[in-house]
Amino acid sequence: MKALVYLGPAKKGLQERPKPQITAPTDAIVKITRTTICGTDLHILKGDVPSCQPGRILGHEGVGIVDEVGSAVTAFKRGDRVLISCISACGKCLYCRKLMYSHCTTGGWILGNKIDGTQAEFVRIPYADTSLYPIPEGADEEALVMLSDILPTGFECGVLNGKVQPGNTVAIVGAGPIGLAALLTAQFYAPAEIIMIDLDDNRLAVAKRFGAAAVVNSADGKAVEAVMKLTGGRGVDTAIEAVGIPATFELCEKIVAPGGVIANIGVHGTKVDLHLENLWDRNITITTRLVDTVSTPMLLNIARSGKIDPKLLITHRFTLERILDAYETFGRAADTKALKVIIEA
Amino acid sequence: MKALVYLGPAKKGLQERPKPQITAPTDAIVKITRTTICGTDLHILKGDVPSCQPGRILGHEGVGIVDEVGSAVTAFKRGDRVLISCISACGKCLYCRKLMYSHCTTGGWILGNKIDGTQAEFVRIPYADTSLYPIPEGADEEALVMLSDILPTGFECGVLNGKVQPGNTVAIVGAGPIGLAALLTAQFYAPAEIIMIDLDDNRLAVAKRFGAAAVVNSADGKAVEAVMKLTGGRGVDTAIEAVGIPATFELCEKIVAPGGVIANIGVHGTKVDLHLENLWDRNITITTRLVDTVSTPMLLNIARSGKIDPKLLITHRFTLERILDAYETFGRAADTKALKVIIEA
Amino acid sequence: MKALVYLGPAKKGLQERPKPQITAPTDAIVKITRTTICGTDLHILKGDVPSCQPGRILGHEGVGIVDEVGSAVTAFKRGDRVLISCISACGKCLYCRKLMYSHCTTGGWILGNKIDGTQAEFVRIPYADTSLYPIPEGADEEALVMLSDILPTGFECGVLNGKVQPGNTVAIVGAGPIGLAALLTAQFYAPAEIIMIDLDDNRLAVAKRFGAAAVVNSADGKAVEAVMKLTGGRGVDTAIEAVGIPATFELCEKIVAPGGVIANIGVHGTKVDLHLENLWDRNITITTRLVDTVSTPMLLNIARSGKIDPKLLITHRFTLERILDAYETFGRAADTKALKVIIEA
Amino acid sequence: MKALVYLGPAKKGLQERPKPQITAPTDAIVKITRTTICGTDLHILKGDVPSCQPGRILGHEGVGIVDEVGSAVTAFKRGDRVLISCISACGKCLYCRKLMYSHCTTGGWILGNKIDGTQAEFVRIPYADTSLYPIPEGADEEALVMLSDILPTGFECGVLNGKVQPGNTVAIVGAGPIGLAALLTAQFYAPAEIIMIDLDDNRLAVAKRFGAAAVVNSADGKAVEAVMKLTGGRGVDTAIEAVGIPATFELCEKIVAPGGVIANIGVHGTKVDLHLENLWDRNITITTRLVDTVSTPMLLNIARSGKIDPKLLITHRFTLERILDAYETFGRAADTKALKVIIEA
Repeated sequence: MKALVYLGPAKKGLQERPKPQITAPTDAIVKITRTTICGTDLHILKGDVPSCQPGRILGHEGVGIVDEVGSAVTAFKRGDRVLISCISACGKCLYCRKLMYSHCTTGGWILGNKIDGTQAEFVRIPYADTSLYPIPEGADEEALVMLSDILPTGFECGVLNGKVQPGNTVAIVGAGPIGLAALLTAQFYAPAEIIMIDLDDNRLAVAKRFGAAAVVNSADGKAVEAVMKLTGGRGVDTAIEAVGIPATFELCEKIVAPGGVIANIGVHGTKVDLHLENLWDRNITITTRLVDTVSTPMLLNIARSGKIDPKLLITHRFTLERILDAYETFGRAADTKALKVIIEA
Repeated sequence: MKALVYLGPAKKGLQERPKPQITAPTDAIVKITRTTICGTDLHILKGDVPSCQPGRILGHEGVGIVDEVGSAVTAFKRGDRVLISCISACGKCLYCRKLMYSHCTTGGWILGNKIDGTQAEFVRIPYADTSLYPIPEGADEEALVMLSDILPTGFECGVLNGKVQPGNTVAIVGAGPIGLAALLTAQFYAPAEIIMIDLDDNRLAVAKRFGAAAVVNSADGKAVEAVMKLTGGRGVDTAIEAVGIPATFELCEKIVAPGGVIANIGVHGTKVDLHLENLWDRNITITTRLVDTVSTPMLLNIARSGKIDPKLLITHRFTLERILDAYETFGRAADTKALKVIIEA
Repeated sequence: MKALVYLGPAKKGLQERPKPQITAPTDAIVKITRTTICGTDLHILKGDVPSCQPGRILGHEGVGIVDEVGSAVTAFKRGDRVLISCISACGKCLYCRKLMYSHCTTGGWILGNKIDGTQAEFVRIPYADTSLYPIPEGADEEALVMLSDILPTGFECGVLNGKVQPGNTVAIVGAGPIGLAALLTAQFYAPAEIIMIDLDDNRLAVAKRFGAAAVVNSADGKAVEAVMKLTGGRGVDTAIEAVGIPATFELCEKIVAPGGVIANIGVHGTKVDLHLENLWDRNITITTRLVDTVSTPMLLNIARSGKIDPKLLITHRFTLERILDAYETFGRAADTKALKVIIEA
Repeated sequence: MKALVYLGPAKKGLQERPKPQITAPTDAIVKITRTTICGTDLHILKGDVPSCQPGRILGHEGVGIVDEVGSAVTAFKRGDRVLISCISACGKCLYCRKLMYSHCTTGGWILGNKIDGTQAEFVRIPYADTSLYPIPEGADEEALVMLSDILPTGFECGVLNGKVQPGNTVAIVGAGPIGLAALLTAQFYAPAEIIMIDLDDNRLAVAKRFGAAAVVNSADGKAVEAVMKLTGGRGVDTAIEAVGIPATFELCEKIVAPGGVIANIGVHGTKVDLHLENLWDRNITITTRLVDTVSTPMLLNIARSGKIDPKLLITHRFTLERILDAYETFGRAADTKALKVIIEA
């Protein structure tokens, strides 16, 4: 089968690989129909993710059709259309029993990282019963690719952790795909306003279309002042960090109101300065989280109800054969205005 | 001044009364600009509310202009435009300190009940600092009349107590003004669908316009079956009772899913049958609540943001001089299709 | 093997039965070392539990040693010492994914009810990976029998649902084993006082020893007055119903303070009167629950730490051969002062 | 009257001052019977608290007798015995209405900071109705001095924010008075074990007496290893920082388990390194808080019930005349083994 393989820092290729096999009774083999590329895949390609070694098939998102199931799989059978979660959950370890699937002792984020992933014609899914979701009759499968990772990540790490509430004020720092996913899902809780902060006017224009009440281009170094002006000097109840560098995290420290929350989504490669000399008495909360995908059933419900349109995030479409072009387009997002790209397998 | 006075069961009159005076340093006198009539006023007129004695000026909702403040009032001054809460809160008793203003030991629901109310040219508001809210610049004052009682009641007693959550299924039994207020505010939490149940097709049509995904006319006695069909046999996560009679409460018992909540808003005059022989092992929650109006600041924020249009509930307008007509119109809602009527003073 | 078999209303016998076999890859066979009798077993023997048919081996509590595991069981192996949960959880259905194991679509309370139970030399445990718990090194196995059902039931249905909090006042109606389990586990949250209510002075004396601050014998019909006196006329923050008849539930309705919770544990066979005409504006919460045993890992931790002594509940010990005597002793608890009886297999 | 006055960095004196007067109708004058010294007073004396200017009477803790009340005070009268909260709360601003008294827009921590404090014969208390608490009949007033600041601080900032739960594992870094207050109040939630970390063996011995399951002297730089060994390599569910320097905060970052909480109590004078490169995917929460004293009514209940003995924290007693000696003793705690010192006025 064809597969996109990580070949070491800055190297990747579309290669021919053997079709994966069932290796445990809880496995399923899924024929991929659609997958996508994540910012994390670009991190891997920079060599920043040591757990992912050369030779690995990338990709942790997608929808497909069950091709084969192991003997202990009871929830799915050959032919079922399924959504693949980016997180594999054994369903029985200490962490899974607390719904913290991200830290499953034998699962977690392993697809396209520690085991072969979804940017291929077929993929082996461990713990299929608790890591796949049935696609509801009549659902738009392309839209559901957004539920593998980006929407639960924006929602769980940003919106839920950030305690977004009706009538509150929210700032989202970073209007890339993940920040925009937070923007879309924050609206489940009717905040009074969402302020979007980024350096890219195009992305800010997208944010406006997606429901941001105000946008701030932080290129002039005056984002703090702008947010304070927008909030009557009070700051925001929730600041969502969706970039992953010290400057954006520290911006969040400066704009969060007393009693507020900083919800970190960004993948950080270095430490940040936490100004406890200013914050120790401000009654704030800071959270970090790797997505647990525990909200997937809820997101499936809400997508079905039409209260969110996940396809807003999709800007480009490619076939699996042209996945290198897809990487090129996704990697130069500032120029191509790419958000999420769909790969049809 | 002119005032609508309760004169004993089934009797009321528009009378001339002396303008109220400050009697405690924490009082304010408010000149009413707009008030409204509540279903509870009709209960009083039926003689069902023993705490309200003949001679009482009715009304516990309204907006106005501060005319005079007591010596201890610091948050308001003459000329301020204010929203009047239906609940008076001393701000310092055991219950107020728990944000349970409804049970304030010297306040609670006293306006138009134990002390004279708002259906008059002026009203005395005890504990003004914690029972009035400043009207934001540029706000639509008529819309804010809906924030005195009906919207916080629908929201706190129905939506908050009912733990409405994104993706969940909600049924609201009773599509009168209070059920519709629950319907409007439930949408702050993006439930996947809201099912509205009533006997009146006109009100169900209104519910559809206000955002109900499905409506059920229960006149045929088959509401349970209809809800079960709409929910794939599972029942609803939240059932909101907004009528106040045994039949509607027991309907909620039958349609709530395992793990669900029955949130009672209705004012009940008699006991109901609680079928614990069916429910003891269903992991359900039942709540009751007199509104605390603790959500008023949030509702002011959200009204300002335009995420809700409280004026949807207003169907008729009268001057204070014609308040008896207003009662007539409101009292025959099935015919007049009245929801909330505005009285301009 | 020997097994205690339900033979129809009021009939039971110690019979010879074939040893159970693995029937699904997720099963385990456990050799029972200790089991016990539950009040629910007595309900079955009265013919009150239609799901349990004659011929069934009773019992849903116990500890033992794994004898054999199915091919998909990965968390346990032959020889492991295990605690058996009274609730079988598949770990993958909609309810299990919400930690509501009691409503597992293919599990829940099935042991000694819909499938053969633990009052035998061996038992088949479905979904072993998510329905058994490893016994920690050095633990007192007899004590852990109390963790199969009675302690999680008292804790989850009574204490957690009842929102027991530091400094609060709690009443527990019913000082049988389950009420006493609630009493022991309520103390995890340092309530200021726990008032125990029962008709049996012996059980009330036990309650005093177990930490009740006050006891009320309700035989004189004046329990409400007694509780009001003990609480300065305010009532209790949490009322736990641990009997299961209308009179005790209605007592809870009368003693719960505004803002309080009634947490039902009792197994009710008939409806009760819910006095909404008094309670609609009291801001109370009523909960029901079949135990989910989601607190079992926590209870194992806390038992290990010595912060609770589950053996306090054990009053008698029998061998499996003498299990009919054990039933006799447990069934006449008023005379024998039995709380929980241990059966050694 | 006599009063302890801050005279600039490192300078203080016992001076004669005029008795304070009512300046607002919501004020009360309280005759101090007992007060104490806080670590924060030492911070002021180092010149580290710019809001506190020379000439200020120090002290924000104490009990006393109401001497006079303003015209709007209704909850207290001359002669009432009262507990003084370290936080003054107006009860009506945006923050007070959210129970975040620490950020009261005209109150908060002002006593002995922005206005004269309690280390004197008399003190003026603003917002008396919402900043004083009646002392229950028969209470030990000396014990209640611990409820002005140290116990609510340990409880709210450490235990509540740290989400201490039954069966969990807690580490407290810093065994000074505030860390010990967290230790005492953490036990309200029955954690399975509390590990106390400090450099001072005497304080660790005290911690053992107060209920710590294990103690770690971090002088050898191996505290992380010690905690990991004690927790089976998993880390702690809650890490409470009760020192206020980068090294102790960063220790918390290293010992918190995935899904855990770092609850900061320490007053920090400088930024700390937050290692998001390790923590971004660990699902942790970090909280900061200035005490709100919202738990004071609960702590009064629980002290009355005898479930905590606040006097354990009291090691020395002085008269107001000897308050300079009291400062000397409290300031050299390592030598004098002082925890809290009582000043009798």
